[in-house]
Amino acid sequence: MTHTSIRFGIIGCADIALKVSRAILLAPNATLSAVASRSLHKAADFAKSNGFPPEAKIYGSYESLLDDPDIDAVYMPLPTTLHLKWAVLIAQKKKHLLTEKPVALNVAEFDEIVRACEENGVQIMDGTMWMHHPRTHKMKEFLQDKQRFDQLKTVNSCFTFFTDPDFLKNDIRVKPDLDALGALGDAGWYGIRSILWAADYELPKTVTALQGAVLNEAGVILDCGASLQWEDGKKATFHCSFLTSLTMNITAIGTHGTLHLTDFVIPYQEQEASYTASAKPGFNELVTGWEPLPSEHTVTVDLPQEVCMVREFATLVQNIKKKGAKPDMKWPTISRKTQLVLDAVKASIEKGFEPVEIVN
Amino acid sequence: MTHTSIRFGIIGCADIALKVSRAILLAPNATLSAVASRSLHKAADFAKSNGFPPEAKIYGSYESLLDDPDIDAVYMPLPTTLHLKWAVLIAQKKKHLLTEKPVALNVAEFDEIVRACEENGVQIMDGTMWMHHPRTHKMKEFLQDKQRFDQLKTVNSCFTFFTDPDFLKNDIRVKPDLDALGALGDAGWYGIRSILWAADYELPKTVTALQGAVLNEAGVILDCGASLQWEDGKKATFHCSFLTSLTMNITAIGTHGTLHLTDFVIPYQEQEASYTASAKPGFNELVTGWEPLPSEHTVTVDLPQEVCMVREFATLVQNIKKKGAKPDMKWPTISRKTQLVLDAVKASIEKGFEPVEIVN
Repeated sequence: MTHTSIRFGIIGCADIALKVSRAILLAPNATLSAVASRSLHKAADFAKSNGFPPEAKIYGSYESLLDDPDIDAVYMPLPTTLHLKWAVLIAQKKKHLLTEKPVALNVAEFDEIVRACEENGVQIMDGTMWMHHPRTHKMKEFLQDKQRFDQLKTVNSCFTFFTDPDFLKNDIRVKPDLDALGALGDAGWYGIRSILWAADYELPKTVTALQGAVLNEAGVILDCGASLQWEDGKKATFHCSFLTSLTMNITAIGTHGTLHLTDFVIPYQEQEASYTASAKPGFNELVTGWEPLPSEHTVTVDLPQEVCMVREFATLVQNIKKKGAKPDMKWPTISRKTQLVLDAVKASIEKGFEPVEIVN
Repeated sequence: MTHTSIRFGIIGCADIALKVSRAILLAPNATLSAVASRSLHKAADFAKSNGFPPEAKIYGSYESLLDDPDIDAVYMPLPTTLHLKWAVLIAQKKKHLLTEKPVALNVAEFDEIVRACEENGVQIMDGTMWMHHPRTHKMKEFLQDKQRFDQLKTVNSCFTFFTDPDFLKNDIRVKPDLDALGALGDAGWYGIRSILWAADYELPKTVTALQGAVLNEAGVILDCGASLQWEDGKKATFHCSFLTSLTMNITAIGTHGTLHLTDFVIPYQEQEASYTASAKPGFNELVTGWEPLPSEHTVTVDLPQEVCMVREFATLVQNIKKKGAKPDMKWPTISRKTQLVLDAVKASIEKGFEPVEIVN
């Protein structure tokens, strides 16, 4: 923690904020400076049980935290429906914004948020932690290897987790007035992002939801999937669900190689993470085995992925504060493409699984 | 090799026949007794270079092999278009039939073949080797474990391999008059089978091909996929291709567990094979890792999967020959369901990726 550390305030005490509080504490260029809840008591409890420094401020309203001149950046783990209102206000208060995903209910709201950030010169980044894991960068090197992987042709991505009856009745992620995008927003966001990541953020031309999506009585998606097509013939599928066992796979297949991993959103262990690279695989002469075998690669982790995320965000904010840089557009551009595809999946479900063209 | 050994003849000298010749040699209840090619010279060469016993007979026509009274069973690695003619003749000659997959060009032809087998009291089995691997039985135990896996909800299966320009121009698998089902028949057969296997052979209600299938100029499928839906909400997807790197994954997700493997058609190594079982996976308290971790299971192999297949087929034939048993209907029933789904995928592609109902 130095005098150039970025001072974070957190608005809302969602479960995910525990993990991000710890990440802010661990990040070398960030300080945990304040937390706000609609209940002062709840905010105080949160600060106490999450190792906030004694000088951290406790606020009983989000507004009062946003008015604090000693806060540089706000982490916003609020339900998606509240994002538009609070993100715009955060930007207007000249605070940089680290927001939970999905960023918005749809791309129109997304654009309002980003416009507010641009007008006020603040950085925005969404909280997709796995993007910042060092493994992600190593895997990208393999995908870019012309010899060993060559041209990306297909991606299959899956993120599902099983939830109990209480979740399916009461969690904010099944409520149309809170996280209205349900499993598509909560889990599908990662699947879509992983596909765009593998495809170097080239948008697909068409998105077709897969038959058999499951919605609750209020119309919130509990389970769905989609297939994506690009103009050059690339294809991808993803599946997301609240209804099936915890699974998080990416298989990216090129002409010459295959990348595979089974813990892409949250690695099995914090200290290290692995993936499998299969480069020019084939069979032995009698076709009774593979030659060469796929190779497993393990990446050692200095800082957990969420700490890397906070560090990256804080670095961008430091560049703005100290060096007069402009906000970095890489992250909102990636976020927007994710939101665009997410919108198209939802539209395709609503149209009875018809193909939907992506219009950028 | 005992006097009750089943005596095999092979018609056609396709590459796959090398592997199955070896399997017949290694199976404890089978004898490699004859090979036929349209060229006597080619048949003699095949026998010589594949370790046929000296007493094995060499035929210059398929018919002459079928007329040999000392042959019990025929292995047929012919192009799919020839299956109907030769399979019916094999049955009429009272020979039991081990046939390469796909069994037929469509289910109508399939039914003609099976009718001929039934009328002549001969066993039929298709050459889907991985079904006979001991790993397959161990994996099934996990899928049937109510505590650890519970109810199957989703299967994703993929079998692709990259082929060179010569294959894409000249191989029988891209020729409409030979293996007219292309990648769907050659690779998709396995994906469909794996899904049916996981679903206890319950047929899906609807099959929808995924947008973006690739066909060659002659209309033969080089790459395609489909999503399958069951009445109870189960879902599956598969992808097959001649155009992308060798990949063969199954992910079967239940409410409580996930089964995963990446070498289902041909295991990485002949001596042993592995799969991953994830039972009631969840996260640690801070959601920074998994608890419990998935467990890897390795199955040691006494006999390669294709030898297990020959042994199983020969056992069924022995039961008929020696004990007066009726042909076992398990295998043709499974084959027929695979063919039905395959037909539906093809029909859906032809209908512009519309959903196709499975009519049994």
